[in-house]
Amino acid sequence: MLDDRSTLSPVMALLAARQPGHTLPAELYTSRAAFDADCATIFGRHWIAVGVACDVAEAGDVMAVDIGPASILILRDDDDALRAFHNVCSHRGARLVPPGRSVVGKLVCPYHQWTYDLDGALALAPHMGVDFARDLHHLKPVALRDVGGILYACLSDDPPADIAELAAVMEPRLAPYDLRNAKIAFEQDVIEEGNWKLTMENNRECYHCASNHPQLSLSFHAADFGYDPANLTETERAEANGLLDAYARHGAIWDAQGLPHAAVEHTVGWPTNFRTQRLIIAGLGESQTPDTRAAVGVPLGDTDRPGMGDVHLWGINSWNHVMSDHAVIFTAFPVAPDRTLVRTRWLVNRDAVEGEDYDLENLTAVWKQTNAEDAHLVALAHRGAMSPGYRPGPYSRFTERALDEFATWYVSRMTAGSGA
Amino acid sequence: MLDDRSTLSPVMALLAARQPGHTLPAELYTSRAAFDADCATIFGRHWIAVGVACDVAEAGDVMAVDIGPASILILRDDDDALRAFHNVCSHRGARLVPPGRSVVGKLVCPYHQWTYDLDGALALAPHMGVDFARDLHHLKPVALRDVGGILYACLSDDPPADIAELAAVMEPRLAPYDLRNAKIAFEQDVIEEGNWKLTMENNRECYHCASNHPQLSLSFHAADFGYDPANLTETERAEANGLLDAYARHGAIWDAQGLPHAAVEHTVGWPTNFRTQRLIIAGLGESQTPDTRAAVGVPLGDTDRPGMGDVHLWGINSWNHVMSDHAVIFTAFPVAPDRTLVRTRWLVNRDAVEGEDYDLENLTAVWKQTNAEDAHLVALAHRGAMSPGYRPGPYSRFTERALDEFATWYVSRMTAGSGA
Amino acid sequence: MLDDRSTLSPVMALLAARQPGHTLPAELYTSRAAFDADCATIFGRHWIAVGVACDVAEAGDVMAVDIGPASILILRDDDDALRAFHNVCSHRGARLVPPGRSVVGKLVCPYHQWTYDLDGALALAPHMGVDFARDLHHLKPVALRDVGGILYACLSDDPPADIAELAAVMEPRLAPYDLRNAKIAFEQDVIEEGNWKLTMENNRECYHCASNHPQLSLSFHAADFGYDPANLTETERAEANGLLDAYARHGAIWDAQGLPHAAVEHTVGWPTNFRTQRLIIAGLGESQTPDTRAAVGVPLGDTDRPGMGDVHLWGINSWNHVMSDHAVIFTAFPVAPDRTLVRTRWLVNRDAVEGEDYDLENLTAVWKQTNAEDAHLVALAHRGAMSPGYRPGPYSRFTERALDEFATWYVSRMTAGSGA
Repeated sequence: MLDDRSTLSPVMALLAARQPGHTLPAELYTSRAAFDADCATIFGRHWIAVGVACDVAEAGDVMAVDIGPASILILRDDDDALRAFHNVCSHRGARLVPPGRSVVGKLVCPYHQWTYDLDGALALAPHMGVDFARDLHHLKPVALRDVGGILYACLSDDPPADIAELAAVMEPRLAPYDLRNAKIAFEQDVIEEGNWKLTMENNRECYHCASNHPQLSLSFHAADFGYDPANLTETERAEANGLLDAYARHGAIWDAQGLPHAAVEHTVGWPTNFRTQRLIIAGLGESQTPDTRAAVGVPLGDTDRPGMGDVHLWGINSWNHVMSDHAVIFTAFPVAPDRTLVRTRWLVNRDAVEGEDYDLENLTAVWKQTNAEDAHLVALAHRGAMSPGYRPGPYSRFTERALDEFATWYVSRMTAGSGA
Repeated sequence: MLDDRSTLSPVMALLAARQPGHTLPAELYTSRAAFDADCATIFGRHWIAVGVACDVAEAGDVMAVDIGPASILILRDDDDALRAFHNVCSHRGARLVPPGRSVVGKLVCPYHQWTYDLDGALALAPHMGVDFARDLHHLKPVALRDVGGILYACLSDDPPADIAELAAVMEPRLAPYDLRNAKIAFEQDVIEEGNWKLTMENNRECYHCASNHPQLSLSFHAADFGYDPANLTETERAEANGLLDAYARHGAIWDAQGLPHAAVEHTVGWPTNFRTQRLIIAGLGESQTPDTRAAVGVPLGDTDRPGMGDVHLWGINSWNHVMSDHAVIFTAFPVAPDRTLVRTRWLVNRDAVEGEDYDLENLTAVWKQTNAEDAHLVALAHRGAMSPGYRPGPYSRFTERALDEFATWYVSRMTAGSGA
Repeated sequence: MLDDRSTLSPVMALLAARQPGHTLPAELYTSRAAFDADCATIFGRHWIAVGVACDVAEAGDVMAVDIGPASILILRDDDDALRAFHNVCSHRGARLVPPGRSVVGKLVCPYHQWTYDLDGALALAPHMGVDFARDLHHLKPVALRDVGGILYACLSDDPPADIAELAAVMEPRLAPYDLRNAKIAFEQDVIEEGNWKLTMENNRECYHCASNHPQLSLSFHAADFGYDPANLTETERAEANGLLDAYARHGAIWDAQGLPHAAVEHTVGWPTNFRTQRLIIAGLGESQTPDTRAAVGVPLGDTDRPGMGDVHLWGINSWNHVMSDHAVIFTAFPVAPDRTLVRTRWLVNRDAVEGEDYDLENLTAVWKQTNAEDAHLVALAHRGAMSPGYRPGPYSRFTERALDEFATWYVSRMTAGSGA
């Protein structure tokens, strides 16, 4: 983009100005130049969560996803393989498939009927002459990986190789849930009025949970995300110690069941940022629902045993909670410097029947409410960053360590990305 | 504009990067810098179609037209002469006349009642003192030409001289239709969600007609706009040859009737880009209506004979179809990099009475529907150009030659314009 | 802001290009770069009117005010002192208090419950560790002055010292009205679709009143704002001379009553631009109401005598009319290059009871209508400035002297501000 080039140096200066342990300089959250650079570098050269395998369950299913200014299409071809391409006709650049999901035999551009096979080959280009080299005009492919049923795409021609590390860690953890064969019970789009990095920061801490997420807190242990050990009330200390004990007990059971549970973190130094850990669900321990019981009568995959907890997975633009009865898959996409799309999918066993095996309102209540609460907080933070009164503030080393690492990772990736 | 100066070099680089035979580099369609440069150079220094003489039929009629950031007013003065001025008071810059059409005795600024005669002279400026030199503050005139009833304005103080060529070609072709004395039966504004050049490209080919304009195709021969001769079905070949035969027959009749019909093209090398040709109307051959019959019982001007076809005229920002019973006059104005106003006027004999001599819905049906279909296509193309997956694509040498020439003309005019 | 730095030179060039006696170059009204520079320099380094003391009448009352991209909070602390701070939490930058007015015990950030005393001290920061230096993270204070009950804030750490001059002139003039103890009977927000400087220019002349403000003109002498003495009708001359006589008569009475009335102007050469004068109210002379009679039965402060007129006060972003029965306080805030918020407060004696002592519609009618009329005019002027047909126009030396001085003041302050 034109704007990128003219403002590259100021963005570099802002990145260089970031102080460890502190939030980013304001313009990295608010300026158009930083937004364009984020789209080009973070969303243009990294593995970005884009959906789930069951978005395109059958051969011929296709889904369009916007990643910043880019639009890609993800499809399942006639051999049941997943593929992704830029959603741009090679002729006049028209969008090939409309927003959302559709079903196709071939990909036919609505503008002039240029027609592509599901492997992206240009099969038909009317009126282009007998000498037209169709093979120079196939669809531009986009790298796509299915990691345990969660889809990651990379717009770069040279995608980071460490997606293999993500797959190695997550495939065994996700395998019991068989997400590839789940179904989407509900999908929700929310626009948060803030920069995508504020959306991600907000998600990477539970420091704000106690006073902002009363319903989520019923099934969520905020202490999982850190606390200041020197400033606990007696009650809090008892709870914190109780949780440590619970992890010791559950850990032994999970080990016995062959369920990986230890935290794995790839942040600074890894292009493909992720963190996973098996969490204990609070309350009755079954699911993130208003009563903390399972919302779905038919379990996901091969998970029909108690106490499997929540396989929690953070990524560059995603967060996920995979539980025995359902999974909640969140993806975040930059729309503008001050607007971020958060798309939430609730996955259940594909044999579960709404109204019989689950009540949709009960299934979705906790995260619908939590999403609304988070959108409010992200907007407050963005408006603050717009102000000349904003100064980068200190992260808690107890409850916001993950944000500090995310910011450090971001700065290092942006610096590396621009130097490439 | 500030932005022009700081981004002139990048726009020049984009213009230089354009490959012959291909669509433009993406940012020429999408960036604010290219949009501002287009407004300054294409819309600021060329003859732009702005309306029709019968927009201001009577002395004192005035119409405001926005051309990008400029607003001009077009009026008919007390001697029935057409004039145009910037729609900007010389005092504090307020808009003199409101959007659309009005009727005035003099032009009175609503802010402080500065009052101008219809020749633009400042007649009254209250409280400016006895020594105030009113003659230094007359309205700033805008060059205006009436070509067969179609109005062209040029914002430059040095308008291209080749408007005389357009007039020489078009006056005899338009004379029988007497558009200057027609009336506007209907006017429609549509915002297309795409760059103005995508609007113009879309209009300059009928490659997309078969699959997108089912109703227009009843009265329109897509083959008029080219085809790949090596890839026709037998049916298509028979139709194409039949059309060639029809042009031979009609041409002889048109010659006998003294009706010019041959194509005239002024594109690369001419500031005032236009193309005209007399087209055969398909179907029953009378008019671009759902049943291809004339929509109006009273013919335009002196055209009461069958088979006069369609005087088709393309311009920089306009396209026109002038038929015996009615004319459709299209003008396109840039609103934003991704927004273009398309204003369509349906002209009929001023003596024709709605409900008696014509049914408004029947008159306007084909192009209302076609405009809606085109707006959708232009939006698809613009969204594609926004994507990092966009690459300039190849034009068909058979069906998109006119687009290639338009792009070449555009690049040459922008380069010439900025060097001036 | 990033944009400031990259476009500083163009703004300086525009400032240097301004011709005395003429409106500003167009881009100073319309460009994003000039807007950002205005926010940084005019609204960032000068005393800006932000409200009234009775906005926060009781200890614990707090009000948020946006000044361009900045948000500040104004509160009354437990010792009844007025204070202002940036409305930005020192932790993650979230907005501390919501838009408008609220009541607090302490300032608690909704995000993570960081808690500040009303003097801005950080009292509580959970989970930050025992060694956390809270005193480094107090709220950032904003300079605040109460001048006769009207509040002025300055975002700079080095506020202009000449606020003392404003206070010295205005305190005795405003004292009889006791605005500090008034109450807000009504508040109205209007967005004007124009640059803030066009809003201020529009307010600083009454050249446009006769033809645009029929209702205001009943209680307002446009002649107070100048006229061309050589071009009056006999009637106008008689009126103008009558007004001069009236000022002589009223001046003697005001002198006798100890009511200051002479005009005081601080414009070019003073950072804190203001003008004040006691004006005669037209018609029956009591108040700016539809019938020019007092709207409120209980007078403001100690003003229970006839003929005190209108203490008129202009500021950088404000205008005010303080009358015996009520005061109208206007503040204008930049929202975007082409959008300005005008906030109007009608103040009455706090003991006056709506429906008994005053009718709200009668109280607010004149300025509600006038505000709507002015918003229309400002939009016309802004649209004109957007046009390439705009040229800086001449101010009347009789009726627009104050605008010329405002423009000159603006250029000098912007030049000084950027050199600092």
